Amino acid sequence: MLLYESPVSGNCYKVRLLLAHLGLPYERRTLDVVDRSDRPEVLGGLNPALRVPTLVLDDGRSLGESGAILWYFGEGSRFVPTDRFERAQMLQWMFFEQYDHEPAIAVVRFWLAYSGNPEAFEDRRTERTAAGYRVLAAMNSHLVGRSWFVGDAMSLADIVLYAYTHVADEGGFDLTLYDAINAWLARVAAEPAHVTIDA
Amino acid sequence: MLLYESPVSGNCYKVRLLLAHLGLPYERRTLDVVDRSDRPEVLGGLNPALRVPTLVLDDGRSLGESGAILWYFGEGSRFVPTDRFERAQMLQWMFFEQYDHEPAIAVVRFWLAYSGNPEAFEDRRTERTAAGYRVLAAMNSHLVGRSWFVGDAMSLADIVLYAYTHVADEGGFDLTLYDAINAWLARVAAEPAHVTIDA
Repeated sequence: MLLYESPVSGNCYKVRLLLAHLGLPYERRTLDVVDRSDRPEVLGGLNPALRVPTLVLDDGRSLGESGAILWYFGEGSRFVPTDRFERAQMLQWMFFEQYDHEPAIAVVRFWLAYSGNPEAFEDRRTERTAAGYRVLAAMNSHLVGRSWFVGDAMSLADIVLYAYTHVADEGGFDLTLYDAINAWLARVAAEPAHVTIDA
Repeated sequence: MLLYESPVSGNCYKVRLLLAHLGLPYERRTLDVVDRSDRPEVLGGLNPALRVPTLVLDDGRSLGESGAILWYFGEGSRFVPTDRFERAQMLQWMFFEQYDHEPAIAVVRFWLAYSGNPEAFEDRRTERTAAGYRVLAAMNSHLVGRSWFVGDAMSLADIVLYAYTHVADEGGFDLTLYDAINAWLARVAAEPAHVTIDA
């Protein structure tokens, strides 16, 4: 199968991290995350959002949205809880990540570290940074006394939240005070078969 | 069970619409969507995002994020496909709705119709409106030749996309040219047990 992706995108890293844990082979095709002019040509018909990650199965069927791709491969694995309520809790954190976490922490990181033009976003950075810190505080509170976001095992919730949290410093976020987050980041990275974002 | 919600929120309507289809009884508690000062007190410990909808089960366990609540009740019902790939496609549209559709169409609708202060958002409205029209165009293209977003039956994907699309006119969006969207909106509303957003 083929994964259209970017090496710096946390959304793409989520998919690569899960596929590494599951030991599934795939081909990578890198798209530019700054110059997106080729997206309609390359991803048209494959993903309505014209974004990476986009996955194409060997039979030609395609999927967009990191959360949906993770679900497709995660179902039935140790990364999706067998309990119905815990599955819903996992999805709660996955939707929270896409609605609150990514549009703050990933966006500020992109502006500062990858856009090539951080000045252009300066007027929106204060508000997005404050939103990012609210997300980090909510994560840290939840993690106090817990090893993983849902239940007693690592799940897709941990994978999606790890992706942009562990590189939040590239967006100027200071994680020093978030002890529970730091312990959890180390826990995720210590799992067998873990791969880094630049692998 | 208890649903913290708002009568004008499409995210809350998604939950009410599914529960109506499933015939499940629940209690409603309305929170203000403009003055959110009571949110930490009311929703603290129930939902890390401090947003509606928040669901509290009879045993006290709680869930946030409309997509996660829908999944919890939808699993095993006719609104979640039995095919693994179709389940992932459904989640693709659900994540697309929360990442692309809601932050454009729902946000502009809120600014214009419910914020009480539309002028304050005037500088961001043009960009958000353009983003909304890109979403509508992607939805319309996908629906040409299809009755439902995924497979051959109504699913959670249709419920989440219906919620803010059918009131997009309150955000100034003109749906006239989107024939496939209009036929699909009528199809959703014609389902037995359908309820309106103001029900």
